Amino acid sequence: MLLQHYFLIFAGTALCGLMVVIGLLSRINAIRVENETARRIAEAIREGAMTFLKEEYRLILIAVALGSGILGYFFSPLSGGIFVVGSLLSLTTGYLGMKAATLANVRTTMAAKESGEHGAFLVAFFGGGVMGFAVASFGLLGLGTLYYLFSDRLDFVMLLTSFGLGASLVAFFARVGGGIYTKSADIGADLVGKIEVGIPEDDPRNPAVIADNVGDCVGDTAGMGADIYESYVGALYSSMILAIAHYGSTASYVTLPLMLAVFGLGGSILGLISSLIFRANPAAMLRNATYFAIAFLLGASYFYLKYFDLQSNLYYSIFLGCVGGVVIGLITEYYTGGKPVERVAKSSESGAATNLIDGLAVGMESTVAPVIILSAIVLVAHMYGGGLFGVSLAAVSMLATVGITMTVDAYGPIADNAGGIAQMAGFDPEVRKITDKLDALGNTTAAMGKGFAIGSALLTALALFSAYAQEAGIAGLNVLDPLVMAGIFIGGTVPFLISALTMRSVGQAALQMVLEVRRQFKEIPGLMEGKAEPDYKRCITISTKAALREMILPGIITVSLPIIMKYTLGVMALGGFLVGSTVVGVLLALMMANAGGTWDNAKKYIEAGHLGGKGSQAHKAAVIGDTVGDPFKDTSGPSLNILIKLMAVVSLLLVLAG
Amino acid sequence: MLLQHYFLIFAGTALCGLMVVIGLLSRINAIRVENETARRIAEAIREGAMTFLKEEYRLILIAVALGSGILGYFFSPLSGGIFVVGSLLSLTTGYLGMKAATLANVRTTMAAKESGEHGAFLVAFFGGGVMGFAVASFGLLGLGTLYYLFSDRLDFVMLLTSFGLGASLVAFFARVGGGIYTKSADIGADLVGKIEVGIPEDDPRNPAVIADNVGDCVGDTAGMGADIYESYVGALYSSMILAIAHYGSTASYVTLPLMLAVFGLGGSILGLISSLIFRANPAAMLRNATYFAIAFLLGASYFYLKYFDLQSNLYYSIFLGCVGGVVIGLITEYYTGGKPVERVAKSSESGAATNLIDGLAVGMESTVAPVIILSAIVLVAHMYGGGLFGVSLAAVSMLATVGITMTVDAYGPIADNAGGIAQMAGFDPEVRKITDKLDALGNTTAAMGKGFAIGSALLTALALFSAYAQEAGIAGLNVLDPLVMAGIFIGGTVPFLISALTMRSVGQAALQMVLEVRRQFKEIPGLMEGKAEPDYKRCITISTKAALREMILPGIITVSLPIIMKYTLGVMALGGFLVGSTVVGVLLALMMANAGGTWDNAKKYIEAGHLGGKGSQAHKAAVIGDTVGDPFKDTSGPSLNILIKLMAVVSLLLVLAG
Repeated sequence: MLLQHYFLIFAGTALCGLMVVIGLLSRINAIRVENETARRIAEAIREGAMTFLKEEYRLILIAVALGSGILGYFFSPLSGGIFVVGSLLSLTTGYLGMKAATLANVRTTMAAKESGEHGAFLVAFFGGGVMGFAVASFGLLGLGTLYYLFSDRLDFVMLLTSFGLGASLVAFFARVGGGIYTKSADIGADLVGKIEVGIPEDDPRNPAVIADNVGDCVGDTAGMGADIYESYVGALYSSMILAIAHYGSTASYVTLPLMLAVFGLGGSILGLISSLIFRANPAAMLRNATYFAIAFLLGASYFYLKYFDLQSNLYYSIFLGCVGGVVIGLITEYYTGGKPVERVAKSSESGAATNLIDGLAVGMESTVAPVIILSAIVLVAHMYGGGLFGVSLAAVSMLATVGITMTVDAYGPIADNAGGIAQMAGFDPEVRKITDKLDALGNTTAAMGKGFAIGSALLTALALFSAYAQEAGIAGLNVLDPLVMAGIFIGGTVPFLISALTMRSVGQAALQMVLEVRRQFKEIPGLMEGKAEPDYKRCITISTKAALREMILPGIITVSLPIIMKYTLGVMALGGFLVGSTVVGVLLALMMANAGGTWDNAKKYIEAGHLGGKGSQAHKAAVIGDTVGDPFKDTSGPSLNILIKLMAVVSLLLVLAG
Repeated sequence: MLLQHYFLIFAGTALCGLMVVIGLLSRINAIRVENETARRIAEAIREGAMTFLKEEYRLILIAVALGSGILGYFFSPLSGGIFVVGSLLSLTTGYLGMKAATLANVRTTMAAKESGEHGAFLVAFFGGGVMGFAVASFGLLGLGTLYYLFSDRLDFVMLLTSFGLGASLVAFFARVGGGIYTKSADIGADLVGKIEVGIPEDDPRNPAVIADNVGDCVGDTAGMGADIYESYVGALYSSMILAIAHYGSTASYVTLPLMLAVFGLGGSILGLISSLIFRANPAAMLRNATYFAIAFLLGASYFYLKYFDLQSNLYYSIFLGCVGGVVIGLITEYYTGGKPVERVAKSSESGAATNLIDGLAVGMESTVAPVIILSAIVLVAHMYGGGLFGVSLAAVSMLATVGITMTVDAYGPIADNAGGIAQMAGFDPEVRKITDKLDALGNTTAAMGKGFAIGSALLTALALFSAYAQEAGIAGLNVLDPLVMAGIFIGGTVPFLISALTMRSVGQAALQMVLEVRRQFKEIPGLMEGKAEPDYKRCITISTKAALREMILPGIITVSLPIIMKYTLGVMALGGFLVGSTVVGVLLALMMANAGGTWDNAKKYIEAGHLGGKGSQAHKAAVIGDTVGDPFKDTSGPSLNILIKLMAVVSLLLVLAG
């Protein structure tokens, strides 16, 4: 095919994806919110979220400007410019997704009130779709255009890397900042509201309740969007770099990752449409759309390889990536939804300590099976599926269907928010019941998305690491070399350090929030009786300030450590450093994500009436476990997935600079 | 020097050490326990401890018999026999130490009652000394004799490794079994006693109180003894193997590690004696004795290298080992006793969740500095201090003064136990105050010992790993090889898996204990009023059964995984496996040990009257944190130090088998 043909396919598919985005947005917007209270609450949430996003983006843009200056100075102005484009696309995705979420949340509530479960489900599902399809379309469009314009340049690898750095940098800040925001508000609201004062979740008397709902938008939606966008872009461009290393500039191989993205996005669109045609219950719809997209990807790529006469063994890797993602997703579902949850709930009966010990144990154990599966994928893909390029293709195929998997992921927080609005607006409990059901469904199906995200993070990090080794001219990285060994150990400490920083930030901000909420309950007369309004804004300010202040240090550390390593101990030690941080980072990320999910669902299991139900000793213990799990699963854990790739891409740039 | 001369020095020093052991034992035994209640309580603790030890040893002996059969069949009967000797020496050390501890505990109480702080301190100090000097003497005697008898044999390396395997296997079982025993009892006693029923620690009305005190003996004394013995022996024999690899059978190098042990033990004896001559306050005595021993070691080894004309650069490594151990000890002291403790205590004010989040953050952060220091030691020792042999010498010199550092370590649980007996026997609160003070002192000074143990674990594991690579004929272990990479990832999951298993065992056994203690309080009339006696035995049985049952699976997994790796993925993957498990194991061990220590001391800080003191909300939260920390610091964390070496020595044997 000619260059123009490729571009037409990439841009055409991306435009179809963007049309889906626009279509979904207008469908959501068409619903009118006629209830004044609900409208006012939603407005407060939207305003809080947008205010935070504006401040956060300002800080991120400073970092982006700084980065583009450095790239422009040391490499080329073009590289600096492309880095900016990569960053802006990520910011736009986050913005769009959050816009959709803040529109869809209240409309989901209204739909639940007026047309019941299915109507409400569709609104939340569409809201999530905006994010999902925006991620897939922007990523494909950006990299496709890059390929079209610059693939003939000698510094094409460098330009790809600059684009990827933009995505990684924005994602890291958005995840850390958003994660600190959402969890400090969540913990603050829960600890005083639920435990000390004894009012239900999302009670309007709770001063932190708006901050909590804003947090869902900025952390779970905007933060996650940037995160998945980064994973998607990372898998694609690292695979393209390895294709260039293996096959030179042979277009059919270099574009293969992008073609997989085309098939994945096409499958996602068809999956979405078919799930709308064959209406089923919500759980089946979410699941079927995902499986449909995967099946389409597998089928289309099979014929593509055959028709264009590409190496057929690459198909092993593509297949392994899809299947591996699904299996890891199922394992995640087991640990965060199966027997282990009941066991952790049961151990809450002897108090918070045993709940915590058991939850940590579940998290630790849950790392074993996924990592063994990923190791098997690496081995098989490497040996039979096209070497390192095969390994990177596995990551691409895991993420190619991101349009639909991310839709499922982003749907959850919207349903969660909708429940909050129903509660605060004082709607009939039946409405809340519907949104709770949709929320619970989101928690289960999101496990699949998490499996894809963590699995692809490991594979992409390995791909970037291989690219690093190749560009650095390292033929072998010998562990018996003390420099490499020292690098591995030092790299291993980084995920611990960054987790420590982000967890502490959440803990300290939550402490401030707790003191503020306690103060308001004590000092505002009539608040407890519902006669006076709390000061929501002060709580929002606490979360905002903490998030913005605390996201800076981890960012600086992450970007500067590879630089320090290279200029003190050299490229071999830096190679070891990347290995150490990847191994420890992946394990810790899995542990934290799954322990957090298990605690969350153990609490919900008790709240559903088991072991004494709400208000029992077991419930109190489970709430503490859930609270510890909050920063695990929504701040520190997900940051690590980005961390390992961000450090790898910085290292890659360092050796590209020579 | 002639072979006989070496042997005379080794055996002579070891016999001096054993004379110290006998002298200390007789000094302790000379004190008469005239109070009937105290005598009866101490008797119950001793009986419980001995019963458990007997059952535990029976199980361990089955494993030893099995192991010796396998070694005898696949290698040689001699190898099987030496493996048995290595195991038996470890078991004897544990037995002796516990014997001393169960004699010294009640005598410390009596001394506190009758002659005040200094007298009580000396008894506990002497009790700890039995363990310390037994470890050092038996280790030196065993390896010295092995050298004397078999150093001319071709399979000497194999015999050394068999001896080491015995020590590692026993240590792993003793640590895991003892750790599960002590922590299930401790948690069970605390959760119901302190939190639910509101009676003080060590109250005789608590049905789990005897089990708790037995646990201190079997876990913190016998378990720790076997652990340190294993570290000591491991450092020595791995260093001897590397000496053989570097210098052939040149006696002056092969015996150098043992000579360092001679200087360390000599320094420890002199340190003990001089601290008794220059009587100071307890804290100064513990510290001075340690520093004296280290100074003696450094001085003597300097002149030894010079006089016998050994490579002088080896001294760098010896020096770095000592200094590194002290520095890591000081860092441990900071994290578990300094500012971080106050911060964690402060965050208890907003509840258990923030206490836990902050404590975990402290534990994670605390891994960074020690690992960087150890990496620096590896780098410098390797490059300037004699290569891999230098790295192993650093581990030896860190542990050579184990006689005195272990004394300080083992002193703590005795003081702890003495306090329990004072409380249960209803002595004057002044007595308890003295023992509490001695106990607190033990917690602080023990940090130094922990620094030495963890630091040496990393270095010894590296030494064993290097020996493995050398014996396997691996010149380079290339991370870019997918087999190696997969090995690293799979190895990284093992510490998580073993921690998960051991934490869950503690959690589940604690749950059983809580239910039993609750039952007794409910069903035994008059128990709460002190009119009826609880059923101590049932609680002892719960801990005993859980410990024995739950230590088997981790043992089987640890020993069989390297075998599975070798026969499925081969020696390269097994090499990667060892790297992955060492890196993750060391980080996790540090994190768990330090987080546990911080939570423990944060609780004590509040109990000392800060932030509302005992009974406040902050205190309740801190107790939960401390409880989660219990299995961290006394079961799972320390097991990992042994785990990484046990897997390395099994791997080494596998390649020695060819």
